[in-house]
Amino acid sequence: MKKSRLEAFSDSVIAVAITLLALDLKVTKIDGVPLSSQLSEQRLTFAAYAVSFFLIGAIWLSHHALFNRATGVNRSVLLYNLLLLLFVTLIPFVTSTYGDHVEGPPGDARAAVIAYGIVMQGVSVSFALILWTLLRGGLFEVPLTPVQRRQVMIRYGISTAIYPVITLVGVVNPPLMLFLYIPVVMYYLGPGERILRGDTASAAKG
Amino acid sequence: MKKSRLEAFSDSVIAVAITLLALDLKVTKIDGVPLSSQLSEQRLTFAAYAVSFFLIGAIWLSHHALFNRATGVNRSVLLYNLLLLLFVTLIPFVTSTYGDHVEGPPGDARAAVIAYGIVMQGVSVSFALILWTLLRGGLFEVPLTPVQRRQVMIRYGISTAIYPVITLVGVVNPPLMLFLYIPVVMYYLGPGERILRGDTASAAKG
Amino acid sequence: MKKSRLEAFSDSVIAVAITLLALDLKVTKIDGVPLSSQLSEQRLTFAAYAVSFFLIGAIWLSHHALFNRATGVNRSVLLYNLLLLLFVTLIPFVTSTYGDHVEGPPGDARAAVIAYGIVMQGVSVSFALILWTLLRGGLFEVPLTPVQRRQVMIRYGISTAIYPVITLVGVVNPPLMLFLYIPVVMYYLGPGERILRGDTASAAKG
Amino acid sequence: MKKSRLEAFSDSVIAVAITLLALDLKVTKIDGVPLSSQLSEQRLTFAAYAVSFFLIGAIWLSHHALFNRATGVNRSVLLYNLLLLLFVTLIPFVTSTYGDHVEGPPGDARAAVIAYGIVMQGVSVSFALILWTLLRGGLFEVPLTPVQRRQVMIRYGISTAIYPVITLVGVVNPPLMLFLYIPVVMYYLGPGERILRGDTASAAKG
Repeated sequence: MKKSRLEAFSDSVIAVAITLLALDLKVTKIDGVPLSSQLSEQRLTFAAYAVSFFLIGAIWLSHHALFNRATGVNRSVLLYNLLLLLFVTLIPFVTSTYGDHVEGPPGDARAAVIAYGIVMQGVSVSFALILWTLLRGGLFEVPLTPVQRRQVMIRYGISTAIYPVITLVGVVNPPLMLFLYIPVVMYYLGPGERILRGDTASAAKG
Repeated sequence: MKKSRLEAFSDSVIAVAITLLALDLKVTKIDGVPLSSQLSEQRLTFAAYAVSFFLIGAIWLSHHALFNRATGVNRSVLLYNLLLLLFVTLIPFVTSTYGDHVEGPPGDARAAVIAYGIVMQGVSVSFALILWTLLRGGLFEVPLTPVQRRQVMIRYGISTAIYPVITLVGVVNPPLMLFLYIPVVMYYLGPGERILRGDTASAAKG
Repeated sequence: MKKSRLEAFSDSVIAVAITLLALDLKVTKIDGVPLSSQLSEQRLTFAAYAVSFFLIGAIWLSHHALFNRATGVNRSVLLYNLLLLLFVTLIPFVTSTYGDHVEGPPGDARAAVIAYGIVMQGVSVSFALILWTLLRGGLFEVPLTPVQRRQVMIRYGISTAIYPVITLVGVVNPPLMLFLYIPVVMYYLGPGERILRGDTASAAKG
Repeated sequence: MKKSRLEAFSDSVIAVAITLLALDLKVTKIDGVPLSSQLSEQRLTFAAYAVSFFLIGAIWLSHHALFNRATGVNRSVLLYNLLLLLFVTLIPFVTSTYGDHVEGPPGDARAAVIAYGIVMQGVSVSFALILWTLLRGGLFEVPLTPVQRRQVMIRYGISTAIYPVITLVGVVNPPLMLFLYIPVVMYYLGPGERILRGDTASAAKG
């Protein structure tokens, strides 16, 4: 299994999943209810769409940054990568479930928040497993110093600790869940991502 | 982040979005209503499908022409590119909403026109932001002369001024909106696109 | 516009369209009607699915054979290629419409056959336009002899003459339409395709 | 037809199919029924989703391992590959049909198990046909010894014997079918896959 083909396949799956998200945006014609009020009633559905879109964007970016440094993949990496993709393909489902129920009965909104949280946790744990396997298998281009190792593990592991907190807050206040994912997205899309690649560059130079 | 992977990912998302457009073409069996009259009643839906198809085609082409000249991408380009893709993936949704409501109550047709306009404006602004960031970051293969710079900025910025006008006309006359997008599509798919690449060719020769 | 990116984009759109075909296979739970009889009642829907699947497969193959010989693409080729993709993305829609109505009222079956025929004719005409533009623009790797030119034009043009005949037969006998597409698929997937590439090989050697 | 383009097209189709699987996960709002009980009632649907996801993952991997060794493809390989993709694109349909009916009336559950079995058998036979054609056409990079030949044929052919057994058990006990696919998935995703590539490596060295 060449790394490039795993990357290409993962990119395709992520690209399809990010595009399918929008399929669940639907406005059914209801007589007597103006379209404008239907659209504005769905504002949390649109917000959930945007948050999930950028979360998948951040997953794509993290995936890329991680495999960019890898020299190859083994069977375990492949399996954990499939697990990651399983959870990524579930994001459109839990996003539309959240959008449909966030303003419904409290029990349903809670169930939707928990479903969303489980899928995001699955993404997070899969990333940690991939990283762990790459580290253990010596599959990084440049050997990491203990400091770098810790930085990378924090970056790819921190969300496994944060997502349960976000889910707990969401169980109490379902719409708040979305807003708490915004800093997460900003962290993963932000310049912090460069740590990993910056290290490579300096190691290559040094 | 290598430019080529951003291009490949964007191409995939655009390819999926352009194909998903057709998913919203549906004829539900209604007893007593012949299929032929159902199909002919939906002629504006089909027209909207075709216009959106070529608009996404033009977006793909513009995206390609822009990144073809870029030497690399930075974090901001990446973010604005995700923003662009967010709006692209919304095109199937606003196209089917327009098709469903353009001949419905005036208020609904208006809302559908505005939703379509917001998404197209989002595409347009994202392109302007990408171009601006590439220009500021010195990420073009060949430094642009001031004249070229202006030409390119007009090409990628002009639609931010034109789309609101089309939307305003569409608010008054919803079906007319579609026809006004035709010259826009022709402009972006037409030979004018060569300006950007023509310059590169002559600069490379000179 | 590099040829390779046009090919990659077209391949993606064709791959998504061929996979979306299956989305329209659906069995809704109806109380009292066993699943097995629902499935067997839909045998023409499944047959239409299979025929359209191999037709899209043949389109992919023909597209590949054609562009394989091209040295580059110009603006017109690009536009006709978008037109081709427009019709390809409509194939899932007309296939499911055909499957839903082929055994319904005669008028509806006729309308579905005509819709299918229009889309296939659109595919056929787009191919002829692409070929014509490549030939006129001198965009073939190896100049074609008049004999080869005629062979190639027959191959890519013959279906514009055959599809209307199939559609006419289908208007009289809707289920028969499917069976008439089988030899077409076999022709395009069959060894005849080698003519084009065989010539290239001998020309390259000679 | 270059091998690489067949691989890229197949990868795209497989990537879209694996992502579309999740489209059939849907929870419709039913008044008075809490979301949580709807989700837990669908646990077999989710299990079917996961099994089919890893089955498609295993198909992707097997496809890759097989073509990795091939030096080229001929017309027959191409046709059998299209046949393989036809069955792969049907997996989402039979998975959702299974999920909808596994706990319904026994006759329906049986029909759903048989439909699932037919599609998996189609995948299996297509793989055997591709392998057979590659072997007969001398299209392997390194000539296989008789022992290797047998190993490879067992690997790609064994499922044609196992799937009917799984289907028969499933006809008697529909939910059990899923569990029987788990060792199959583990076999194809497991280290056994290395046989094929291990041989290549030693042959290349020797």
